[in-house]
Amino acid sequence: MTEVQTPDLSPMSRPRTLAVVGASRSPAKLGHSVLLNVIRSGYGGRLYPVNPKEEQIENLPCLPSVTAVAERLRPERLDLAVLVVPPGAVLPVAEECGRVGTSTLIVITAGFKETGAAGLEQERRLVEICRRYGMRMLGPNCLGLMDTHTPLNASFAAGFPHQGEIAFISQSGALCASILDWSLSQGMGFSKFVSLGNKADLAEVDFIADAAADPHSRVIMAYIEDVHDGLRFFEVARAAGRRKPVVILKSGLSQAGARAASSHTGALAGSDRAYETAFRQAGVVRARTMEDFFDLASAFSHLPPPKGNRVVIVTNSGGPGILASDAVELAGLAMSSLQRETVDRLRQKLPAESNFYNPVDLIGDADAERYRYALRTLLDDPGVDSFLILLTPTASTHPTEVARVVSQVKREHPEVPMVAVFMGGASVEEGNRILLEAGVPSYFAPERAVAALRGVTDHALLRRRHEGEDVLQYPDLDGEAVARVFSAVRADHRLVLLGSEAAEVASAYGIPAAPTRLATTAAQAVRLAEAMGFPVVCKVASPKILHKTDIGGVKVGLDGAAAVELAFLEILENVHRHLGPVPVHGVEVQRMMPKGRECIVGMSRDRQFGPLVMFGLGGIYVNLLKDVSFRLAHGLTGAEIRSMISETKAYTLLRGMRGEAPADLEAVIDAIGRVARLSLDFPEIAELDINPLFSYTSGGSALDVKITIS
Amino acid sequence: MTEVQTPDLSPMSRPRTLAVVGASRSPAKLGHSVLLNVIRSGYGGRLYPVNPKEEQIENLPCLPSVTAVAERLRPERLDLAVLVVPPGAVLPVAEECGRVGTSTLIVITAGFKETGAAGLEQERRLVEICRRYGMRMLGPNCLGLMDTHTPLNASFAAGFPHQGEIAFISQSGALCASILDWSLSQGMGFSKFVSLGNKADLAEVDFIADAAADPHSRVIMAYIEDVHDGLRFFEVARAAGRRKPVVILKSGLSQAGARAASSHTGALAGSDRAYETAFRQAGVVRARTMEDFFDLASAFSHLPPPKGNRVVIVTNSGGPGILASDAVELAGLAMSSLQRETVDRLRQKLPAESNFYNPVDLIGDADAERYRYALRTLLDDPGVDSFLILLTPTASTHPTEVARVVSQVKREHPEVPMVAVFMGGASVEEGNRILLEAGVPSYFAPERAVAALRGVTDHALLRRRHEGEDVLQYPDLDGEAVARVFSAVRADHRLVLLGSEAAEVASAYGIPAAPTRLATTAAQAVRLAEAMGFPVVCKVASPKILHKTDIGGVKVGLDGAAAVELAFLEILENVHRHLGPVPVHGVEVQRMMPKGRECIVGMSRDRQFGPLVMFGLGGIYVNLLKDVSFRLAHGLTGAEIRSMISETKAYTLLRGMRGEAPADLEAVIDAIGRVARLSLDFPEIAELDINPLFSYTSGGSALDVKITIS
Repeated sequence: MTEVQTPDLSPMSRPRTLAVVGASRSPAKLGHSVLLNVIRSGYGGRLYPVNPKEEQIENLPCLPSVTAVAERLRPERLDLAVLVVPPGAVLPVAEECGRVGTSTLIVITAGFKETGAAGLEQERRLVEICRRYGMRMLGPNCLGLMDTHTPLNASFAAGFPHQGEIAFISQSGALCASILDWSLSQGMGFSKFVSLGNKADLAEVDFIADAAADPHSRVIMAYIEDVHDGLRFFEVARAAGRRKPVVILKSGLSQAGARAASSHTGALAGSDRAYETAFRQAGVVRARTMEDFFDLASAFSHLPPPKGNRVVIVTNSGGPGILASDAVELAGLAMSSLQRETVDRLRQKLPAESNFYNPVDLIGDADAERYRYALRTLLDDPGVDSFLILLTPTASTHPTEVARVVSQVKREHPEVPMVAVFMGGASVEEGNRILLEAGVPSYFAPERAVAALRGVTDHALLRRRHEGEDVLQYPDLDGEAVARVFSAVRADHRLVLLGSEAAEVASAYGIPAAPTRLATTAAQAVRLAEAMGFPVVCKVASPKILHKTDIGGVKVGLDGAAAVELAFLEILENVHRHLGPVPVHGVEVQRMMPKGRECIVGMSRDRQFGPLVMFGLGGIYVNLLKDVSFRLAHGLTGAEIRSMISETKAYTLLRGMRGEAPADLEAVIDAIGRVARLSLDFPEIAELDINPLFSYTSGGSALDVKITIS
Repeated sequence: MTEVQTPDLSPMSRPRTLAVVGASRSPAKLGHSVLLNVIRSGYGGRLYPVNPKEEQIENLPCLPSVTAVAERLRPERLDLAVLVVPPGAVLPVAEECGRVGTSTLIVITAGFKETGAAGLEQERRLVEICRRYGMRMLGPNCLGLMDTHTPLNASFAAGFPHQGEIAFISQSGALCASILDWSLSQGMGFSKFVSLGNKADLAEVDFIADAAADPHSRVIMAYIEDVHDGLRFFEVARAAGRRKPVVILKSGLSQAGARAASSHTGALAGSDRAYETAFRQAGVVRARTMEDFFDLASAFSHLPPPKGNRVVIVTNSGGPGILASDAVELAGLAMSSLQRETVDRLRQKLPAESNFYNPVDLIGDADAERYRYALRTLLDDPGVDSFLILLTPTASTHPTEVARVVSQVKREHPEVPMVAVFMGGASVEEGNRILLEAGVPSYFAPERAVAALRGVTDHALLRRRHEGEDVLQYPDLDGEAVARVFSAVRADHRLVLLGSEAAEVASAYGIPAAPTRLATTAAQAVRLAEAMGFPVVCKVASPKILHKTDIGGVKVGLDGAAAVELAFLEILENVHRHLGPVPVHGVEVQRMMPKGRECIVGMSRDRQFGPLVMFGLGGIYVNLLKDVSFRLAHGLTGAEIRSMISETKAYTLLRGMRGEAPADLEAVIDAIGRVARLSLDFPEIAELDINPLFSYTSGGSALDVKITIS
C-alpha cells in the first residue's frame, strides 16, 4: 500500500493572514484583479498588498516586501502569499517568502514548464525553494483558488461562484473560467474552485483529499489531463469516494492504445485503460462528456443514494413515457415491477384509461392532485427505488402546481431520489425552478434524467459492494524459485522466458501450469515425457518463433517413446527448413491436458498505476474478439476479480452454454489473484500472458505461459 | 419493389376552403381553440365555422352543416374539414363530408382505437367512409396540423411555431405540444408540424413523402412508435432521404429481441433490429435521444454537407481542445492532418506558444483577428472538411467580436460546415446568437457539437456512397428445385428441412453447400460416399437432435467404405443409447471440406420489413460473440453487402490475421446476396442459418445449412 499523506491546506483555503505580492493599482493588471477579488469576496482575515512602488491600493496600506509583511505580522505567520509578479521575480519572492516562514503559496504567474526547457528548469528551482522551507504551493501558471465558505477569492477570475456544496478542481484554467461563467447564469453553487496550473507541487490528489475532509463539500468534481503518482491518486480517490461522490472528467482518450506491446495484454491495455480501471476500482464516477460532468454533479448534490436500481416512471403522456422506459433499460437500470396492491390502489382513484403499470400514465388531463395520489401510492411500494416524473404541458395540466405537489411529496420523503422532466419552454420554467429548490433536479430530456439517476445508483451500489473487503492472501508462494528463474534468464542475456521457464514461475506461485520441460536431445525428451506421463505435446523452444504451428513446430497427441523421439527430430528439421538458422533452445515437452473452456489471463504494467491484470475470452483470436476486462493488481480483492470476470462474455462461457456444466470459477479467480500477486512481488515482470488458460468443471490448466522481464 | 404512392396532401396543408366542424363560442372548448388558431395563424382562404346552434363565431358567419358549407362554396369544393365534434357525431359528419365531395379531413376528436374494442370498430367504419368517398384523413385523436408557410394552424395547440425549414411529424401529441412550447422559447422554426394521432388513414410515410416534395422543408424530423407498412416506409424514407435529411426518433427499444426464435439469426434479430436496419439502409439518420433529435435537426437545417470526415479544431485554450479532439475520435470522425504550408502560414503570424497542429491553439490572449487569420488560413487547406471553433472567455477574449469574425468568414465560405462551442454563460450569450444567425450552430459542450458534425458527415458520405447502385441479379437460379424440396417436406408433415434437403435448396440457388445426401442404410451410405469422394463426414439426420456431436451422432474423417459402414451403425446405436426412441430419418453423408475461416450467414423474417439477412463470426459461439450485422433483403445492393461485412469483426478475420492471406470476399458477398434472393423468392422460408460458412482464399463452403419453412 502506498502511504497516503494529506497535506494541511487550511492555511491556503482559510488563511488568517494573506499577502498579494505584485498587487497593482492599474485595472489592466492581474495584480489588480486578484487584490480586488480578495476584497470583494468578503475575506475577513488580515490582508496586505505588496508592491515596493505603491503606498496604498484600494484603501489598503501597501507594503514594500514580504519581509515587511512578516515584520508587521510577528509573532503571527503569513499563511498565504499569492504571487502575481513578473516571471523573473517569482524565484526571489518565493525565497523571501520561505525565509520569513510563509506557510503556502499560490503562484499565478505563468512562464514556467509550459514555455519549454528554460521554464521547466525555473519551475524545478521554484519547487526546490518550496521544499527547502516546507512551503506548499499551488501553481504556477494558474487562475488561483476560491473558497465560498471562507470566503476567499484568491484568483483573477471574472466572478466569484455562488456558495454551494461542490468542490471543483481543474487542470485547465480556461475550463475554470468557462464553468464559473456558466454556473453564475445557472445559479449553480460551489464550495471550492481550484485551478491547478502546472501542478509543480500540489496536485489534484491533494485537493481531492482536502475536499473529502471538508464539511462544506458534498461532491468532488475534477477535470484532469494526467496524474503524476497513479497509486497515490488511486488511494486518495478511493478513500475520498467512500466519504462522498468523486466525479472526474479526464481528457486525452485519443492517446489510448497508442503504444507498442509484445503481449496480448499489453496490446489491449493502453494508457486510458489504466485510468478507466483505476477510476472504477477506486469508486470514482467517470464523466464521459462535459454534459455528463454537470448532470452528475447536479445529481450528486441533490439526490440521496437510492436503495437499488429500480425506477418508476410517472407521466401524463404515453410517447415520452416510452422514451423514458427505453432510456432506463439502455442505461442498465431496471423498471420497477409494481406490487398488485399498488396497482389496485392506483386503479381505485385514477381514470380507467390510465396505465397502472410502469410507466404509470396519468393521461393528458392529469391535474396536480392526480400526480400527488400516484406519487404517494408508489412511495409505499417496496419495489420502487427512485422516481422519474414526466410532464408535458396540456390544456388541463398546470406545470407549476404539479411542481409544488412534487416538492411537497419530496419533502415528506427526502430519502427517496426523484428526478423530473417537465418538457417544454416558457410554460414549465417556473415549475423547474420550484423542483430544483426542493431537491428534485429537472432535465430537458428523459435520457439526461436517467443518466443522472444511473450515476447516483451505480455509485450507491458500488459503495455497498465494496464495504468490508479484504485483499487476497496466498500463503504458498515460492518467491525464491521465481527469482532463480529470472537470474538464469538474465544470465542467458534474454528478457523473454522460454515456455518451460515461464511454467516454472507460474507453478512457484500456485498457478496451475501444465507440466512443461525443456529437452535438448531426443533421448532427454523421451525421458521427460515418460516422467510426466503420456500423451505429451512437443513444441519448438524459441522465443523468436511466433506462429509455431504454421511451420510444423508443434506435434500433439504423442503417446509413446517412439512418437516423442520422431517428433523431436521432425520439429527441428521443419524449423530448419522453414526458417533457416533461427536460434532454437531445444524442444519443450508438455503434458497434453484435456481441452477446457479457453480463457486468457494476463498482466501489463502501466507507468502510473503499476500492474494491470486482464481476463477474457482466450484462444488465437483474442485480439479480434477483444472480450477483456482489467483491474489494477494493487489492492485487488476477490469481489473485484468476480466483478472483473462478470464483465466479459467469457463469464457466460464459464457459467455453461449449450447445456454444459458450469466451469470452476473459483479456480479462475485464484489464478487471476495469483497473477496479480506475482506481478506485485516481481516488478521486473514487464508483461505476462496465459493463453489459453483451460477452465474445467474442476480446476484449470495454464497451457501457454508467456513472460517478459525488464 | 413496393409501389410508392404519394397522396396529394395539398388540400390539407394548403386548403383554399376550410370548415371547422364543431366550432364553438365557449373558450373552454377545443372547437373554440381550433377556430381561433386558424384565424390567428393568418389563414387566407375561405373559412367556415360549422355549428347548428350558433349564428356567428369570432365575427364569422356560422353555418349549420357541412352541406350548407358545400352549397355556399359551389362550384368550388371543400378542401379540408376539421372535425372537433363529440365522438358520436364523427361518423355522420364524415359521411356528410364525403357526400358533398370534401377532399380531406382532420379528425381531432378522440375516443377511437385508443379506448378499446368498440372504439376500434368505430375507427374502422370511419376509414371505410373515407375510402368510399376518396377522402384522405389525418387522425383521429390528434392535435392537428400546422403549416407556417400557408399559413395555417388547424390544431388546438397552445401556440404556432416560428416559420422555418424543419417539417416535424409526431406520433405523440404530447411531444408535439412540448416541442412546440420549447421551440418558441428557443427561436427554432418549422415549416410543418403534424400530429399523426391514431394513423387510421394517413401515416408518417405520407407526410414524409409530402415534406420531401415541399420546397419550404429542408429537413424532415419524425417521432414514431411504429410503422404499419415497413416496406412502403422503407421506400418512401429512402426516396425522401436522397432529397433531404430525414431524422427519426423511434421509441420502443425495450421490445427488442423479446421474441422466441429457433435460429441464431432469429434470436439475434428482434424488432428494433429491423427498424435499425431499415433506417440505416434507407439513409435515415436515427436520433438516439431527444437531445440528439434536436441537435441533429439544428445541424441539418444550418450546415451544408461536408466533403469528408476531417475536422479541424480552433481553440483559445488547451483543455477544451483536448476534450474536443477526444470527442472527434470517439465519434469516428478524423482530425485533419494539416499541410506543411498551412502550418508554416500559421506560424508566421501566431504567437510562438500557439499550437500550429490540430487542435490549433491560439492561446488565452487570442483576439478576434487571430481567429480570423487562423480560420482563413485553414480554409485554404484541402485536408479540412469542417470546423469546430472553440472559445473560452478570458480577460483578452471578446466572445462577441470573435463571433462576428466567425460569421464573416462563414459568409465568405457558406459551403464549409462550421460549428462552435463558446463555453460559458452570460459572457457568451450574444456571441452565440450572432453565430446562429450566420448559420454556425453553437453548442454548450464540445461533444454535442461533434455529434452534430458527425450526423451531417455520416449523412453526406452515405448519400454519396449510395449513388448509382444496382440491386444484385443472379441468372442461374433453379426455383423449381427449391419448390420441389419444400413440397416434399410439407408432404412429410415437417417444417424443418433435413441437412440434405437444405443443402439441395442452397445449391439450387448457387450457394456453395458441401455435398450432403441422406442414407437410410449402411450400404447406401457407402455408395453415396464413394460417389462424392472420400473423406466424408456422417451425421445423424434428425431435426429433433440439437447437439449431435455430444451424443456421438457425428463421425468425421471417414476415408473408406469400411469406415463409413461402421460409422453408420455406430451413430444409430449411439443415438438409440443416449436418446431412446427419437425420430431419426437416417444418416447424412457429407463430403468433408477443408477447414476455412468460420462465418455465419442467416436470414430471419420481420413482420414489417420482410427478410433480414445476417452476417458475422460463425461457429458454436455465435450467440456468445454476437458479432453480426443485418440488412433488409429488399433492394439489397453489392455495396450494402460490403458495408454489412465491414461492420463485423469477421471482416478483420476475412482480411487475414496473423499473417494469413485474405479470404475470398467476393464469394462471401455472393453467398449473402443469394441468400437474400432466396428469401425474397420464397416467402415460406421462415428462418435460415448457414453456420459455419467456411471462407477460403478462393471460394467457400456452406457446411451446415438449416432452413425452417412456415
